[in-house]
Amino acid sequence: MSNLEAYLDQHGPRFEEELCQLLRIPSISTDGQHTAELGQACDWLVDQFRQLGLQAERIETEGPPLAFAQSPPVPGKPIVLVYGHYDVQPADFREDDPPDKRWQSPPFQPTRRNGNIYSRGATDDKGQMLTHIKSAEAVLRTEGRLPVQLKFLIEGEEEVGSHALHAFLQRHADRLACDVAVISDTSQFAPGQPAITCGLRGIAYFELEVRGPNRDLHSGSFGGSLTNPANALCRILTALVDDQGRIQVPGFYEDVQPIPADELRQWLELDFDESRYLQQLGVTALAGEAGYGTLARRWARPTFDVSGLTSGYQQAGAKTVIPAWARAKFSFRLVPRQDPAAIAARLREYLAAVCPPGVTIELTDLHGAPGVMVPPDSPYMAAAARAIERGFGRAPVWIREGGSIPVVTAFRQRLKVDTLLLGWGQEDDNPHGPNEKFSLADFHRGIRASAYLWHELSAVVPPAA
Amino acid sequence: MSNLEAYLDQHGPRFEEELCQLLRIPSISTDGQHTAELGQACDWLVDQFRQLGLQAERIETEGPPLAFAQSPPVPGKPIVLVYGHYDVQPADFREDDPPDKRWQSPPFQPTRRNGNIYSRGATDDKGQMLTHIKSAEAVLRTEGRLPVQLKFLIEGEEEVGSHALHAFLQRHADRLACDVAVISDTSQFAPGQPAITCGLRGIAYFELEVRGPNRDLHSGSFGGSLTNPANALCRILTALVDDQGRIQVPGFYEDVQPIPADELRQWLELDFDESRYLQQLGVTALAGEAGYGTLARRWARPTFDVSGLTSGYQQAGAKTVIPAWARAKFSFRLVPRQDPAAIAARLREYLAAVCPPGVTIELTDLHGAPGVMVPPDSPYMAAAARAIERGFGRAPVWIREGGSIPVVTAFRQRLKVDTLLLGWGQEDDNPHGPNEKFSLADFHRGIRASAYLWHELSAVVPPAA
Repeated sequence: MSNLEAYLDQHGPRFEEELCQLLRIPSISTDGQHTAELGQACDWLVDQFRQLGLQAERIETEGPPLAFAQSPPVPGKPIVLVYGHYDVQPADFREDDPPDKRWQSPPFQPTRRNGNIYSRGATDDKGQMLTHIKSAEAVLRTEGRLPVQLKFLIEGEEEVGSHALHAFLQRHADRLACDVAVISDTSQFAPGQPAITCGLRGIAYFELEVRGPNRDLHSGSFGGSLTNPANALCRILTALVDDQGRIQVPGFYEDVQPIPADELRQWLELDFDESRYLQQLGVTALAGEAGYGTLARRWARPTFDVSGLTSGYQQAGAKTVIPAWARAKFSFRLVPRQDPAAIAARLREYLAAVCPPGVTIELTDLHGAPGVMVPPDSPYMAAAARAIERGFGRAPVWIREGGSIPVVTAFRQRLKVDTLLLGWGQEDDNPHGPNEKFSLADFHRGIRASAYLWHELSAVVPPAA
Repeated sequence: MSNLEAYLDQHGPRFEEELCQLLRIPSISTDGQHTAELGQACDWLVDQFRQLGLQAERIETEGPPLAFAQSPPVPGKPIVLVYGHYDVQPADFREDDPPDKRWQSPPFQPTRRNGNIYSRGATDDKGQMLTHIKSAEAVLRTEGRLPVQLKFLIEGEEEVGSHALHAFLQRHADRLACDVAVISDTSQFAPGQPAITCGLRGIAYFELEVRGPNRDLHSGSFGGSLTNPANALCRILTALVDDQGRIQVPGFYEDVQPIPADELRQWLELDFDESRYLQQLGVTALAGEAGYGTLARRWARPTFDVSGLTSGYQQAGAKTVIPAWARAKFSFRLVPRQDPAAIAARLREYLAAVCPPGVTIELTDLHGAPGVMVPPDSPYMAAAARAIERGFGRAPVWIREGGSIPVVTAFRQRLKVDTLLLGWGQEDDNPHGPNEKFSLADFHRGIRASAYLWHELSAVVPPAA
């Protein structure tokens, strides 16, 4: 392996340069204004794969194209599907943002500061995804061949729902046939403490509109005589959760399993730094569901969070109206086994029961995704743990992530495989926000761990072999 | 009096034309963009007063000018102060308003339809205010002199807080010395049922901001571990009132007096048409404080109404954030004897008690005004009732109004006089909204009632006489 290590050391600076090339392409998928740049990022990846001698193609879709590549089959060895995405969130900021909320360097001019590379897409997901391409290069250049067959599937609309990817999975599952999937689009537990994510929460996201009078009414002449839609919205939302963080929709917890005792024990050992967390969020106290610690609340318990409120007069000063309507966006984070559709049905029933008289409500189901667990005791997981220990110099811990990665569920359903969620990021990388960053040390450690991963996985005997 | 009636009949069409002249001036006070038009409306009024031979002047202020005029003293007779305002609300509408929410004719091109005149300012307050100028004209032209001394004070910033008026009242109370004030800026009880308003509610209006984390957070990664400011805002607002409409701020009702039994009896006799009211508001059910009927809820009980909600993501679709902050605008309507400053202090204390941990709150006191009662048994009130019966052909009923007219309190405090609130409008005139209107029949009846009012008031012996 010393050849590999030497290659990584020697070519590290070029890997960073290539990362910067990709980061300079503003491949924003959310606004429909960057079709050319999305294509450019896809082509850049296809070119990278071809330089490695992989069979690669740009697959056109109704949205941004997919970059697909594969290395030759290796009989008796697992087939590994590497998934990533080349699209990024907008670099948007508001004109009225205070200076500390703005980008310190232009979002599409990657800039090195304090050992990090700052750029939109640095951690989410260009930087993390590229580690697997560079690791393949290192193994190919130093050993002439890969020890497992790799299939790369890099999409360009992860940030907007992965529509083309899901369609492709439905029609071309055979082309993606594999034994295990790998995604690096999550975070380590803390600086210096790598992790494997073995559980993701699901989500059920809704918009609720409360409708009252046929126009905004004068709150003096009419106030007190009819249900105010804004008052009603607050009352309805407050009825969804008690002051101990327990969701009040009847039956909501029916499919919620207790957190396994050994997992809870592991989390206690993780030595979560609460004061650092408080400082990072800028709050003076944490809060959440009674009877659970912060990690359990974030990773393994359902939540109810309002994400948006809109009603009536929103400008400066006072306007004395009873608004004609009030609207909220909110979601429940779900734990594995909870079904978003069943939750939506229960919610609809409960809302009808708690809605005050004199207003009507309309609930729109915006999207849902189930939570998922990756069995932590599989040979693939063990292989990944060994690779990470070799790449990062420290054994990974097993954590969960509170967000949702719907493609993991899709891989489980369509390809019948589990996904290794190997996050190289840090919790304060600020993806989706200003000053997104990725640690350059983690970039190189990720490449190293990935290179070892191909070897460790080659030692696993796939079921079909 | 037949000379007077004949004059009103003969000159009615010209009165309408003159109303249209005034309505065509877009004297909007709220946006600071119509200084010239405000001055133009003031000059138009001063010119009207001079044509009547009154001593009239345009009084410059820091804001829009005041139009002031007076007729000669009439020894032994009351001095009557007529107040009105020539400024209007903006004619604004939203680009995305449905057709039935838009102006059917341009807001500053007064248009006759169905016996009404449609224009911004038609009822609030140009049309109602002008009745008192035209009545003075009719009496002067037919009798050569007014039976009481009239002082007219017409301001140009009623819609934005009457700052100059309050300053003028403070410095020049002597110039406004009078025995009774008259304002026509309210409504009749129903079509064909004139009314005198003998009570107004007060108001205490606030903005509340709940602040949480230092930025919008991903609701997956962080949700469940900290207090969500939008959740907290809903919880706090909901804690302010119970589901029976009773405000929960401790001590809130301390100064609230029971509604006098005879007043309640009168309201029962008013034969309030609830089905018409439901239809007018476009709601299927009324609601409000337990134990009270609709009129009591609107006129004589305190309320809590949210007028605006703003937080997090407000555009189309789903964004999974925990917002950094959430904001509400809300007000309590107060009944006479409740003190807005005392209510603000009690509220501040209660909010500190109900605010969940992990967020901070900032309460801004935007404005307050006490409620007021006009004694219904004064000789001035009796004179007004007789005048209305002669002008409208039907005796007025005594009602209250749920809104606030702070100048009534200012007249009480500075000039030590009560105000006759003689509303010629209708409840569906839609002041502040699109398609504001004023019934032309009510315009003429108002002029007639006003002309008789000067005579009826001249029969009252003022205390100092």
